[in-house]
Amino acid sequence: MRIGELSRRTGVSVPTIKYYVREGLLPAGRLTSPNQASYEEAHVQRLRLIRALLDVGGLSVAGVREVIEAVDDPDRSVHKLLGAAADRVVPRYEGEQGGGIVAARSAVAELVDRRGWDTHPKAPAAEALAVALAALENVGHGSFAEVLDTYADAAERVAEADLDYVARNVVREELVESVIVGTVLGDAIFAALRRLAHIDASRRLFGGEA
Amino acid sequence: MRIGELSRRTGVSVPTIKYYVREGLLPAGRLTSPNQASYEEAHVQRLRLIRALLDVGGLSVAGVREVIEAVDDPDRSVHKLLGAAADRVVPRYEGEQGGGIVAARSAVAELVDRRGWDTHPKAPAAEALAVALAALENVGHGSFAEVLDTYADAAERVAEADLDYVARNVVREELVESVIVGTVLGDAIFAALRRLAHIDASRRLFGGEA
Repeated sequence: MRIGELSRRTGVSVPTIKYYVREGLLPAGRLTSPNQASYEEAHVQRLRLIRALLDVGGLSVAGVREVIEAVDDPDRSVHKLLGAAADRVVPRYEGEQGGGIVAARSAVAELVDRRGWDTHPKAPAAEALAVALAALENVGHGSFAEVLDTYADAAERVAEADLDYVARNVVREELVESVIVGTVLGDAIFAALRRLAHIDASRRLFGGEA
Repeated sequence: MRIGELSRRTGVSVPTIKYYVREGLLPAGRLTSPNQASYEEAHVQRLRLIRALLDVGGLSVAGVREVIEAVDDPDRSVHKLLGAAADRVVPRYEGEQGGGIVAARSAVAELVDRRGWDTHPKAPAAEALAVALAALENVGHGSFAEVLDTYADAAERVAEADLDYVARNVVREELVESVIVGTVLGDAIFAALRRLAHIDASRRLFGGEA
């Protein structure tokens, strides 16, 4: 198909499609003349993935490029690939971390040990967790960490459901894509559900007051 | 204290502190001479809150300003205030939504009904959930919605723990602050825990292969 049809099919404007090609997110079309390229069904699918990661996942263009490189890399075992994909969609924090980060890292190591999780202590997610716990401590809400095991219980159940879904997608390329989509969109879905459950719980707890 | 000490105490540079004052995130100090202002302990606490929301919560400066206005507004019931605070930290999606959004909104309404959640159907979180579900459908992973109730179970447990924590913070101002901190940092904490649980589950499922 021509670029105009690709644009209509996906709702992404022609200049934006060209931008994604220049940025290495989308493979170029096959040239059929010096000024015209032809696009395939795979371009439609890839464009939808890019938009989901950008719009709902909140990833940057550079973040999307990294994720797409992981999807396209044929030289890894599934487990390593899943790990790499998951690492790439962990938010990285730039700010000052203050003195609490050392204690927070110990708290994370203890939690991982207590849960019996077989994860690397240097996993980006472990560091992301430590930074979030240090930030809580910094704003005077360190005691929020008391509910950490409730969060961990819930995370285990959700991760189990995620991996069950992933294991059903047997084609390797789809498998990696589904893990990335599930990871990024799953965050958004869980966050939205938690807000709805908050509203419900708040009405029960505080709804009676004037 | 002077601005230099405020900077040392919080690790935020003097030009950045001045920027937050200009942007309305931080109240100005009390002028002690035409070129010098004095800052209080409340400024330290507020700066830490701002940095947590920006660095870990990933909010924009405009988003932080909205949240701070909610904290400072004295004219609301606790339940309404919690709702307003929660609404303000729901991500809003700008992208194209395609045709699937109508079906996704119905799916969300059915879910809310099935769970017996007492929430407004127009809550920003309900719309955020619909957008995420539509995006899943768009990238060919609509069947991921089968795990939605597992996510909802987990979200209920986490929200219950959150509100228990919040209910312990009886001072109204602290209560609102704790809900905002818990909502924003809680997302980051849950996302990190889910990644760690993924690595553990993936090792069990796929770790044996070459």
